[in-house]
Amino acid sequence: MKLYGYFRSSAAYRLRIALNLKGLAAEHVFVHLREGAQHSADYLALNPQGLVPVLATDDDAVLTQSLAIIEWLEETHPEPRLLPGSAGERARIRAIALAIACDIHPLNNLRVLKYLAGPLRIPEATRDDWYRHWCDVGLAALETQLAREAATGRYCHGDAPTLADVFLVPQLANARRVSVDLARYPTLLRIDEACNRLPAFADAAPARQPDAE
Amino acid sequence: MKLYGYFRSSAAYRLRIALNLKGLAAEHVFVHLREGAQHSADYLALNPQGLVPVLATDDDAVLTQSLAIIEWLEETHPEPRLLPGSAGERARIRAIALAIACDIHPLNNLRVLKYLAGPLRIPEATRDDWYRHWCDVGLAALETQLAREAATGRYCHGDAPTLADVFLVPQLANARRVSVDLARYPTLLRIDEACNRLPAFADAAPARQPDAE
Repeated sequence: MKLYGYFRSSAAYRLRIALNLKGLAAEHVFVHLREGAQHSADYLALNPQGLVPVLATDDDAVLTQSLAIIEWLEETHPEPRLLPGSAGERARIRAIALAIACDIHPLNNLRVLKYLAGPLRIPEATRDDWYRHWCDVGLAALETQLAREAATGRYCHGDAPTLADVFLVPQLANARRVSVDLARYPTLLRIDEACNRLPAFADAAPARQPDAE
Repeated sequence: MKLYGYFRSSAAYRLRIALNLKGLAAEHVFVHLREGAQHSADYLALNPQGLVPVLATDDDAVLTQSLAIIEWLEETHPEPRLLPGSAGERARIRAIALAIACDIHPLNNLRVLKYLAGPLRIPEATRDDWYRHWCDVGLAALETQLAREAATGRYCHGDAPTLADVFLVPQLANARRVSVDLARYPTLLRIDEACNRLPAFADAAPARQPDAE
C-alpha cells in the first residue's frame, strides 16, 4: 500500500492513526500541500480532487476520502475493530467522526483559508477568528454530547479506541495550532490524552513525520 | 421512526431519499432552520449540534449526521443495498458521497453563509460567488472522476442507485439554487436525470415536502 499524505494534513493524520491501530504498514509518499504539489498534473491524474490522503492499494485501486479509506481498512482488516458493537453503537461512533469530518475540518482546510485570504481579502487575524469559531462551535457540541452520554468511556466510545478517536485527535491538534482554548472541553482533552499515550496515535503525530518542517 | 428535518436542508433530503429507496416510513418533524428552531433548548437537548437531520429510532436512540444515519439504515434494513459490491466498490461509493458531504456541502451551509454575511460583512453577490466556487470545485472533480471510471453506470456506481446518488442529487439541487452552470457537468446531469425519474428521489424533493415555502 502507498499512502499519499502530508504531515500537517489532519485527514492524512487520521489515516496514519488507523493504519497504526490496525498494525498495517504503508509506503509514505509526501505531497507538499503548501508548495501546491496537489495541483500537479500527475497528482490530479491520481485524484482529480487534488486532496490528500489517497491510498493506493496493492491491487492498484486508488482510494480517496479519509473516512471511505478507513471504512475500507475496517472491511478488509477487521481487527482490531474501529467500528465495534451494534448498529446503534456504530452509528454513534460514525456520527462523532462525521461531526468533525463534515462540520469542523472542511471549514478550516488550507484551500478555504486561501480563498478567505485571496478573493475575499480577509486579514489574517480575522481568518484565525474564523478558524477558532468553527472549532469552538463543533468542539462545544461534541463536549456536551460526550460528557452526557453513558457510552463514552476512556475513549470516545467505550474503553478501546475507535474511529471517533481517530478523527478527534487530529482535530484537536489543529485547534491547538490556532490557540483554541481547549480547557473548555475537559472530556475531549481527557480522551485526547488517553489516545496520545498509545503509540498508534503518538507515532502518527505531524511532528513525527519525515516530511515535517 | 421520527425524522427531524427541513425541506431545504440537503442533508435531510439525503435521508428522505434513503428512506424512500428502502421503502421505510418515518414520521416527519419539521425544524424551521430559517426561523432558528434548531437553536431552541428542546432541539439542542435532542442534538447539541443544532443541525438536521436527526433520526429518533423506535427504540429511542437518537441518531445524528446524515451519513451515519444512512449507514445505520443500511445495517438494519439491508435491502435494497445502497452500498453494494466488494470493499473496493463500497470505498468508491462512499468516497463520492464524502466528496459532497465533506468538500462541498459544509462550505455552503446556512450557518456558514450567515457567518460570511454577519461577522465578515461579505455582500450577497460575493457570498453567491463563494457558494458557486465550492460547488464548481467539487462538482468538476466529480465530473472528471465519474466520466473516466468504468464503474460509473446509469447511476454513480453501476445501474442501480447507491449512497453516492443519494448525496449527489441534493447537492445538484443546491447548486441550481445559486445558478451554478451545470451544463459543464454532463455526466452528473445525466445521472441526476436518471435518479429523478425514480419516485424515491422525486418524492424527496424539497418542493414536495409539507413544510416547503
